[in-house]
Amino acid sequence: MTTLINPSVRPLGVAAIGYAFMGKVHSNAWRNVTSFFDVPAFEQKVIVGRDPEQVAGAAAKYGWAESATDWRQVITREDIDIVDICAPGWMHAEIAIAALEAGKHVLVEKPLANTLAEAEAMTDAARAARQRGVQSMIGFNYRRVPALALARELIAEGRLGTIRHVRAAYLQDWLADPDSPMTWRLNKEMAGSGALGDIASHAIDQIQYLVGERVTEASGMLRTFTTHRPGPSGLEKVTVDDAVWATLGLTGGLSASVEASRVASGQKNSLQIEIYGTLGAILFDLESLNELGFMDATLPVREQGFRRILVNEPEHPYAGAWWPQGHVIGWEHTFTHQIRDFLVAIGTGTAPSPSLEDGLNVQRVLAAIEESANNKCTITAVQA
Amino acid sequence: MTTLINPSVRPLGVAAIGYAFMGKVHSNAWRNVTSFFDVPAFEQKVIVGRDPEQVAGAAAKYGWAESATDWRQVITREDIDIVDICAPGWMHAEIAIAALEAGKHVLVEKPLANTLAEAEAMTDAARAARQRGVQSMIGFNYRRVPALALARELIAEGRLGTIRHVRAAYLQDWLADPDSPMTWRLNKEMAGSGALGDIASHAIDQIQYLVGERVTEASGMLRTFTTHRPGPSGLEKVTVDDAVWATLGLTGGLSASVEASRVASGQKNSLQIEIYGTLGAILFDLESLNELGFMDATLPVREQGFRRILVNEPEHPYAGAWWPQGHVIGWEHTFTHQIRDFLVAIGTGTAPSPSLEDGLNVQRVLAAIEESANNKCTITAVQA
Amino acid sequence: MTTLINPSVRPLGVAAIGYAFMGKVHSNAWRNVTSFFDVPAFEQKVIVGRDPEQVAGAAAKYGWAESATDWRQVITREDIDIVDICAPGWMHAEIAIAALEAGKHVLVEKPLANTLAEAEAMTDAARAARQRGVQSMIGFNYRRVPALALARELIAEGRLGTIRHVRAAYLQDWLADPDSPMTWRLNKEMAGSGALGDIASHAIDQIQYLVGERVTEASGMLRTFTTHRPGPSGLEKVTVDDAVWATLGLTGGLSASVEASRVASGQKNSLQIEIYGTLGAILFDLESLNELGFMDATLPVREQGFRRILVNEPEHPYAGAWWPQGHVIGWEHTFTHQIRDFLVAIGTGTAPSPSLEDGLNVQRVLAAIEESANNKCTITAVQA
Amino acid sequence: MTTLINPSVRPLGVAAIGYAFMGKVHSNAWRNVTSFFDVPAFEQKVIVGRDPEQVAGAAAKYGWAESATDWRQVITREDIDIVDICAPGWMHAEIAIAALEAGKHVLVEKPLANTLAEAEAMTDAARAARQRGVQSMIGFNYRRVPALALARELIAEGRLGTIRHVRAAYLQDWLADPDSPMTWRLNKEMAGSGALGDIASHAIDQIQYLVGERVTEASGMLRTFTTHRPGPSGLEKVTVDDAVWATLGLTGGLSASVEASRVASGQKNSLQIEIYGTLGAILFDLESLNELGFMDATLPVREQGFRRILVNEPEHPYAGAWWPQGHVIGWEHTFTHQIRDFLVAIGTGTAPSPSLEDGLNVQRVLAAIEESANNKCTITAVQA
Repeated sequence: MTTLINPSVRPLGVAAIGYAFMGKVHSNAWRNVTSFFDVPAFEQKVIVGRDPEQVAGAAAKYGWAESATDWRQVITREDIDIVDICAPGWMHAEIAIAALEAGKHVLVEKPLANTLAEAEAMTDAARAARQRGVQSMIGFNYRRVPALALARELIAEGRLGTIRHVRAAYLQDWLADPDSPMTWRLNKEMAGSGALGDIASHAIDQIQYLVGERVTEASGMLRTFTTHRPGPSGLEKVTVDDAVWATLGLTGGLSASVEASRVASGQKNSLQIEIYGTLGAILFDLESLNELGFMDATLPVREQGFRRILVNEPEHPYAGAWWPQGHVIGWEHTFTHQIRDFLVAIGTGTAPSPSLEDGLNVQRVLAAIEESANNKCTITAVQA
Repeated sequence: MTTLINPSVRPLGVAAIGYAFMGKVHSNAWRNVTSFFDVPAFEQKVIVGRDPEQVAGAAAKYGWAESATDWRQVITREDIDIVDICAPGWMHAEIAIAALEAGKHVLVEKPLANTLAEAEAMTDAARAARQRGVQSMIGFNYRRVPALALARELIAEGRLGTIRHVRAAYLQDWLADPDSPMTWRLNKEMAGSGALGDIASHAIDQIQYLVGERVTEASGMLRTFTTHRPGPSGLEKVTVDDAVWATLGLTGGLSASVEASRVASGQKNSLQIEIYGTLGAILFDLESLNELGFMDATLPVREQGFRRILVNEPEHPYAGAWWPQGHVIGWEHTFTHQIRDFLVAIGTGTAPSPSLEDGLNVQRVLAAIEESANNKCTITAVQA
Repeated sequence: MTTLINPSVRPLGVAAIGYAFMGKVHSNAWRNVTSFFDVPAFEQKVIVGRDPEQVAGAAAKYGWAESATDWRQVITREDIDIVDICAPGWMHAEIAIAALEAGKHVLVEKPLANTLAEAEAMTDAARAARQRGVQSMIGFNYRRVPALALARELIAEGRLGTIRHVRAAYLQDWLADPDSPMTWRLNKEMAGSGALGDIASHAIDQIQYLVGERVTEASGMLRTFTTHRPGPSGLEKVTVDDAVWATLGLTGGLSASVEASRVASGQKNSLQIEIYGTLGAILFDLESLNELGFMDATLPVREQGFRRILVNEPEHPYAGAWWPQGHVIGWEHTFTHQIRDFLVAIGTGTAPSPSLEDGLNVQRVLAAIEESANNKCTITAVQA
Repeated sequence: MTTLINPSVRPLGVAAIGYAFMGKVHSNAWRNVTSFFDVPAFEQKVIVGRDPEQVAGAAAKYGWAESATDWRQVITREDIDIVDICAPGWMHAEIAIAALEAGKHVLVEKPLANTLAEAEAMTDAARAARQRGVQSMIGFNYRRVPALALARELIAEGRLGTIRHVRAAYLQDWLADPDSPMTWRLNKEMAGSGALGDIASHAIDQIQYLVGERVTEASGMLRTFTTHRPGPSGLEKVTVDDAVWATLGLTGGLSASVEASRVASGQKNSLQIEIYGTLGAILFDLESLNELGFMDATLPVREQGFRRILVNEPEHPYAGAWWPQGHVIGWEHTFTHQIRDFLVAIGTGTAPSPSLEDGLNVQRVLAAIEESANNKCTITAVQA
C-alpha cells in the first residue's frame, strides 16, 4: 500500500540507481539544482550500484548520504520518494515498474527500454501509477537545452509559419577507429541497438517535440561498418548498428530526415537540428549548445540572415538562474534543468513531461526504422 | 561527313545555344578563360536564342561575334567546332545528338536529359562520336570548385582512410513562399523534375566523384508542399517535387544520405557535403566555396579539429591562375575552370570528364529515387 | 603567531567573503570541485556578507555550514585555514593583508586592488606570508579555461615559433544603452576604473601568461561615451571609462594590442585572443570557450588552415575530469579549476600561480595605460 | 588645351598604366563591366608597361587593343579619354598630374602617393581639373564590396544609432616566414611604407567612409620584426614596417582602433571591421566578402544576435547585376563595381567618389600615425 508524499512534512528522499556516466551527471544535477532554482526540498539519500566499494566512493564524491547494492531494498524504503534510474537500458523495465508499484516517483533515462514489449509494460505501469498521484518522466534531457527550449517557444508562437521539413543528425566519432575495443554497448542483448537507440532517439524526440507533431511513417537503413572488434579474448562480433539513416513522414504534412553515426570522424557530440518553415528557420548544434540560429523571413529581404542568438539572457528559458549574459553554461545543466522541472511537477502534483508514453512513441519510431523494408531500387552503372 | 578539327590551323569556333542564366554564365567563362589559363585558341562565334532582338543584345553584352535563332543551322556551320548547350533540359537530347553527329564537340548542361531514354540516346551518340575524335562533356561544374577538387585530391591520396558515409544536401529557399509564382521549372513536362533533377543531381554527382564509388541502391521520398501556384490565368498545378530525400548504398560498402530542397528558408545556395572516413573527414558548403573543412585523425588527439582551408594558394587546384592568397573567387569561375578543362581535353585529343555516361549514371540514380517503393512502416502513437 | 596547517589532521576550513556574483560562482566551485578532482579535504565553513538575512540565505543555497557578517572575526577563527575574497576591489587590500597576517591562505579576486599603493602593500604581505608557508593567489580564472591552458602548452612547446604580436579584446555590451542606470561599478571611488580594471585586466594577464613575456611599455586611450546615467535621485556622473584601447610593447620584442569595451553592442562576454608566431597562430573567444583555433604553419601549405579544436578530450588540460568528448563545460568551471589548483598547491606546500605579484604586474600595466601621455598627432582634413 | 569628352560621339578610349597584379585586376574589370552593368561605351585601347614583350602579352591576354611602353606618349593621345594608373605608388604623382593636365579622366590606385607632398600636388591638380570637367578617383575598391556598401546604407539610415567605436584590422601573413625574400615592397624608397600604406590605408578609408566621420587624432606604433631579408646578392635591409597599430579619435566623439600586419600567420587577406553603435552593430571580414554581420538591438532581447546576411539578393548594392541569390561573387568584382561607378560618374559629368582629396585625407592619417610621438609609459615588473 503506497502513501502519498507530503512535501510539507519532510524533504523528498531521493535514490539514484547507477553511478557510472549517467549516475555521475544525474548526481551533479541533484547536488546543484537548489543553488540555482526554487524547488521542493529533497535529500540525496542513497546511490545504488553493484560494486560496494565503488558505489561507496561515488556516494562520497557525488553528495549522497549513503550507498547500497540492492536496488530492490532501496526502492521500498519508507524514506525514499523518488527513484532516479541511471542503470543500463536492459534494467529499466524491471526497476521502473517495481518502483512505480512501490509508489515512488520515477525518472528513467532514455531510451525507455531495449524492447517494445518492455516499453509498453513500463508505460502501462506509469499510467496506472499516475492515477495514484505517482509521477514519472523519461530523461530526454535535450528538451532542457535553453536554446532548444527557446526554439520550441518560437515555433509554438508561429514564428516559423508552416513548417515544411526538419533535418536532424546526431554525429559522434568514438567508434571511427576500427580497432577501438568491444564494449557492452555494441552487444544487442545488452544495449538493444547502437546509434539508433542511443543517439537517434534523442534526435527523434527533438523532432517531435520541437514541431509538435508525431512521426507516422518511417523508412530506414542501418549499417555496421566494423563487424568485429577486439575483446578481452579475441575478436567479438558487433551486433548493433554503427550508423542509421531514416526519412520520416509526420502528422501535419511535415517531412524529416534523421541520421545518427558513431563513426563520423571529427564530430564529437554534434546533435544538429535544422527546421524550415514558410516564415523562418532554426539551426542548432549541441557542440555549441548556448547558441541558437534563427532566420526571420518576415524581415525585409535586405536584412535577412541566420542570427546567432547567445541564449544566456534573463529573457531566455532557464538562463536567468545562471550567470550574467554571455557567460555560457555546460552540457551537464540540461540535467539540472530536468531535475528542476521534475521536482516542480512533483511539488505541484502535475505530470512531468516528457512522459513514459513519449518515450514509447520514440521507441515505436526506432522499431519502425529497424523493421522498414529497405526495398531499394538497384542501379546499374554504365561505363564511359 | 565530319572533319577532324586541327587547332593548329585556326582558332576553334564556338557556338552557345541559350542566353538565359546558363548562357550568361557560360559566356562569362568563354570571355575570361584566356586571361587566366593557357588554352587552345578559340573564338566566341555565335550565340543562339529564340528571340532575335534579345539574343542580339546578349551577343553584344557577352562577347559573341554574332547571334542567331536557328540552332540547326548553326551546328552545321563549317566555322563551328564546339557547341555549348545551355538550353533547357527537354532540348538537350535533340541538340546534342545532332551536334555530335555533325562532328562538333559538345558541352551540355546538367541534368543530362529529362528522361532516361533521352539520356541513353545521348550517351550512345557520345560514345560513337568519341570513336571519331569528337568529344563531349556534361556540365557538373562543381567538380571544378577548387575546394572540392582539393577534397578529391585528399581522398584519392587516402587521407580519409576507408570512407564510411557521406552526408550531402543542396538547400535553397526560392520556393519557400507559397505565393511565389508558377514557372516552367515547376512543370514536369518542361523540367523533368524539381529539386531532384535540378540540384540533387549535383549532390549525387559530387558523392560519386569525390569518393570514387558508384551508387548501387537507393530509397527515396519526394514531396510537393505547395501543390498549386499562381500563373498568369489563375492557380496552376505544380507537377514536380519541392524537396527530395534519399538514402544510398554505394560500391565499396559506403552509405550516403542526400537531401535537396527549394523551400529551406534562409538557405540560399547551400550545397553541403560531409565525408567521414577512418582517418579523416571533409566538410564543404557552396555558400563559402573558397573554404574546405578538413579533419586529419592521424594527428595527435590533442590537436585534432576541423580546419578551414582557404583554397586560394598556388598549391591549390586552379587557384594559382587567379589572385594572391586570400583574394577569394566567385561561383561563376567553376564554369571558367570547366571551359578550361574542356578546351585542354580537346586540344590534347583526350576525352573530357565528366562524360555523358557520368551524366547518365546520375540520371539512373535520380530515376531510382523517384521509383523507389517508399514502403514506409506506419507508426501509431500512444497518448499519455 | 600563525600555526602551519596540517591537512592530515582535519579538513581545511574555508571562509568566503562576499556572496554576490563572485561569491555565487566561487561557492559553486567549492561545492563541486571534490566531485571531479582529487584535492585535499576541506569544508565550506562560513560565508560572510553585510546583510545577515541575505548571507544566511546564500549559505543555505550555496552549501556553506554557516554565515557571518563580520569578516574580521571570521579570519581569525582557528577552524578557518583559507580565506576566499570575493568582495569588491576597494575591500581587497584590508581583508587580504589581515588574513595573510592571521596565517590564512588567501585567494583574492581580480583586479588585485583599486590603487597601485594598495596592490603593493598586498604584495608585500603575500611575500612575507609565503616565507611562513602561507600561500596566496589572484583569481585570473581564465588561465584555467582548458582551451587557453592548451594554448599555453602549445606555445611553451614552441609550436608557434617566434611570436610576433598578440591581438586581444574583451567586448561586452551591458552599458551600450545610454539609459541603463548608474551603479557602483561606474564610480571611480568604488570601482577604481571601468572596463580597464574589470575586463582589460583579464586580457592583459592572458597576454603575459600565454606568451610568457612581460609588458614593458604601453600607450593608451580611455573613453566615457555616456557621462551621466540615471541614479535613484536624478542623473549621476559616470567617473570610470566605458572603453579602453592600448598598444603594448613586451619583452622579447613582441607587440600587442588590447581593447576593452562595455558598449560593444551584440558582444556579450567576448574575450578574444589572437596570437601570431612564425610557425603558427592561436585564436580564442570566451563565448565559445570549449574551442581553440590553431593554425600550424609547418604543415604543407595545401593543408594549412585554422582548426577548431573542441577542447574536451582526456588529452586536454582539466577536461579528463568532466564528461565524454564533445560534452562541453560552462564558464563557471574556470573557477572550479582555479580552486582545484589552489587546493593542490596548498596541499603540496607550493606557491600557487598566479601570485599577487602577477596581479600587481597587471595593475602596473593598467596604471601605465591610464597615465600614458596620449600625445596624439592632430589631423586636419581637406575637403573635395 | 583640353577638349571635353562627348560620349555621344565615340566610345571613351581607355589607357591602363601597369600590367602587374593591379593591371591584371583592373583589366579584368574593364573587360567585364559591360556584361553586367549599363555604362557609357568605352574601348580598351592600350596598356602600358616597361617591358615591350611582356606588356604585349598582357594586352593580348587581358583584352587591350594594343600595348605601349611610354606612358607620356599615351596620355596625350587624342583617342585616350581615361587613364587608369596601376603603376607603383612612387609613379602615381607624375603620371596623374600629367594626365589630368592633358585633360584625361584619372583613376589612380591607392595609396595616393608615397609622400604627403606628392599627394597634395595630386590633389591640387585634381581640383583644378575638376573645374574643367575632368574627373578623378582613387581606387579604394573596398567601398564597392556589396556587403560594405550595405553596411554604409544601414549606418546612414541610423540603424546603428549613435556609433561609439570601430575595431578594424587588416591581417595578412605573406611575410610571416623570416626567410621570405626581399622585394621592392619592403624598400621605403619604392614603397613609401609597409603594412601602413598598403593595407592599413584600406582600413582607415573604410572607417571614415562607413561611419561618415573624419579621423582627427592618432597615436600609433610601427614594428619591423624581420629587419633583413635575403636579396639576390645577400641580406638586404628592410626599411618599411611589418605591422602597425593605431588608436584614433574621430569627429563626432567616435574612437577607433586599427591594426595591420603582414606577419599574422594564417590570416590571408582578412580585412576585419566591427562597428558598435547604441542601436546595433556590424561585423565584416574580407575573406568572407559576400557576408555581412548585423545585430539589431531594437529587436526584443530574446531574439537578438548577429545575423549573417548573404549579400547576394537583388535588394543588395550591386548584387542584382550578378547571379541568383546565394551564388557568391569574388574579390575581383570590387574593381568591376569601381569601374562601373567611375564610368557612370563620367557619363553624367559628376565627380566620382572617393576623390583624390579622400585619398589625401587617408595619407594624412597615415603620416600622423607614423609621426606620433609613441610616448610610452615604461613598466617595471615585480617578481614573485
